[in-house]
Amino acid sequence: MSTIRKSFSSIGLLGFGAFGQLMARHLQPHLPLTVFDPAQPPQADDSGEGLVPGSIAEVAACDIVVLAVPVDALADAIASLRPHLRQGTVVLDVGSVKIEPARLLLAGLPDDVEIIGTHPLFGPQSARDGLKGLKIALCPIRGDSVRRIAAFLRHALRLDVIVTTPDAHDRDMALVQGLTHLVAKILVRMEPIPRRMTTRSFELLMQATEMVRHDAPGVFLAIERANPHARAVRERFFAHAQALTDALDRDHRPAPAPANASLAVSGPSTPGVPALLQRSISPEHHAEP
Amino acid sequence: MSTIRKSFSSIGLLGFGAFGQLMARHLQPHLPLTVFDPAQPPQADDSGEGLVPGSIAEVAACDIVVLAVPVDALADAIASLRPHLRQGTVVLDVGSVKIEPARLLLAGLPDDVEIIGTHPLFGPQSARDGLKGLKIALCPIRGDSVRRIAAFLRHALRLDVIVTTPDAHDRDMALVQGLTHLVAKILVRMEPIPRRMTTRSFELLMQATEMVRHDAPGVFLAIERANPHARAVRERFFAHAQALTDALDRDHRPAPAPANASLAVSGPSTPGVPALLQRSISPEHHAEP
Repeated sequence: MSTIRKSFSSIGLLGFGAFGQLMARHLQPHLPLTVFDPAQPPQADDSGEGLVPGSIAEVAACDIVVLAVPVDALADAIASLRPHLRQGTVVLDVGSVKIEPARLLLAGLPDDVEIIGTHPLFGPQSARDGLKGLKIALCPIRGDSVRRIAAFLRHALRLDVIVTTPDAHDRDMALVQGLTHLVAKILVRMEPIPRRMTTRSFELLMQATEMVRHDAPGVFLAIERANPHARAVRERFFAHAQALTDALDRDHRPAPAPANASLAVSGPSTPGVPALLQRSISPEHHAEP
Repeated sequence: MSTIRKSFSSIGLLGFGAFGQLMARHLQPHLPLTVFDPAQPPQADDSGEGLVPGSIAEVAACDIVVLAVPVDALADAIASLRPHLRQGTVVLDVGSVKIEPARLLLAGLPDDVEIIGTHPLFGPQSARDGLKGLKIALCPIRGDSVRRIAAFLRHALRLDVIVTTPDAHDRDMALVQGLTHLVAKILVRMEPIPRRMTTRSFELLMQATEMVRHDAPGVFLAIERANPHARAVRERFFAHAQALTDALDRDHRPAPAPANASLAVSGPSTPGVPALLQRSISPEHHAEP
């Protein structure tokens, strides 16, 4: 906190969606915070010391400007911010991919503005119990502020800071987020899912799914489409999936014939399953002694 | 414990693999335990009160006989056990599927022997911190001992007992275990997987994978092949996967052209990514203030 106060005295936030709100809650104890979002106008903090709603010019006049908008809205945000920015301002984005935003920020912002791409590797779900120990990736794009920003994130917000490049980030995230969201989307489509007769590993799988299933639709699209490495990961995922199924189906031997005639009678719900094995049982009745 | 002592005075265990050993550890404080496994001969418990290695006839002479063998070895186990069994003995299996074992047990065991299909919904990994609260499915097949067995499992071993039918069990497990093992097999094949730049949801996915990846190969085959519902679940899984990919690829727009010529130079490792965004950074050097 002391590190950042030496040099930065204000933060401007452009975008007040779910993630913008999460950031605001954790940033306003540390620095004055000006927020602009025409779609979701923020309310001033009750204490009079925290969040202040502002115009886009007031947000742009802050020492640090954070673009908390979806990746596909970034170009418009940059264009509307550009005329108001001052020399030496540090502009950060928080998108789930880093190559494309870095390109847009480099191309669209004045040369005398510093740029850091960031990806907080958490969201409202995983940050429910606080930020401590959660991870954030930082990609220095232009300027030399990344050390001070990293120190603030580490010491004031207790985040685990990972400094990397846009390409290394997108490469890892194509696997990490790409696979998580693909698996989650598939599991959600498999509902109804058993909730009682479950294994511990399946419960972990469903916890992972619950954590991302309510993410804004743009997050999935950014992860799968705006990341140039995502398509190759998807292709590998489905190639492995296909190979596994093929192997299982190719060598599949039909179950041996029932050993006696009475068992060969098919039950009402599952062809080939003896009726005896499908009888209905009241768990509570049988389970208690 | 008191409930079972009224009626049962000994347990015989046929099979001493990873799961047989886990069971033995938790059962021997409660009842004398005789174990037979020609492939992995058990050692007598040091205390002289617990586990005793025995012949198949000695195992069969116990009040309760547990078949802790892979599903594809069950028919042989039943055949070797059959001549030695006594009237009223309760025989249980512990396989990951229940329709097929129930059929084999009904067909292969004498009529005066009771049968309960069980599926402990845990393994050495998930039971590392004890059995309390872990789940076990019980399928009464023949006889009326299921209440006493359920009471023992609940009160002595602190398990969460779910009484069900073989068909209902296999239906739920086709989803629960079928999906977990499919996803885990795919993720293992996607290695190397990022370990540092990860999200919380991805970590849960990898924990689920770690929990089942070292399961014996027979477990995966039993789950995917010996469960008559597994194939339909696999087909749904891949249909959803395919639909998701198709939708992503069909509407895929190529990334917009770089905004200026200098950024259009391809980097060394990723075609289309500006070299600037691929530069190497030492995280430690940049991250500390």
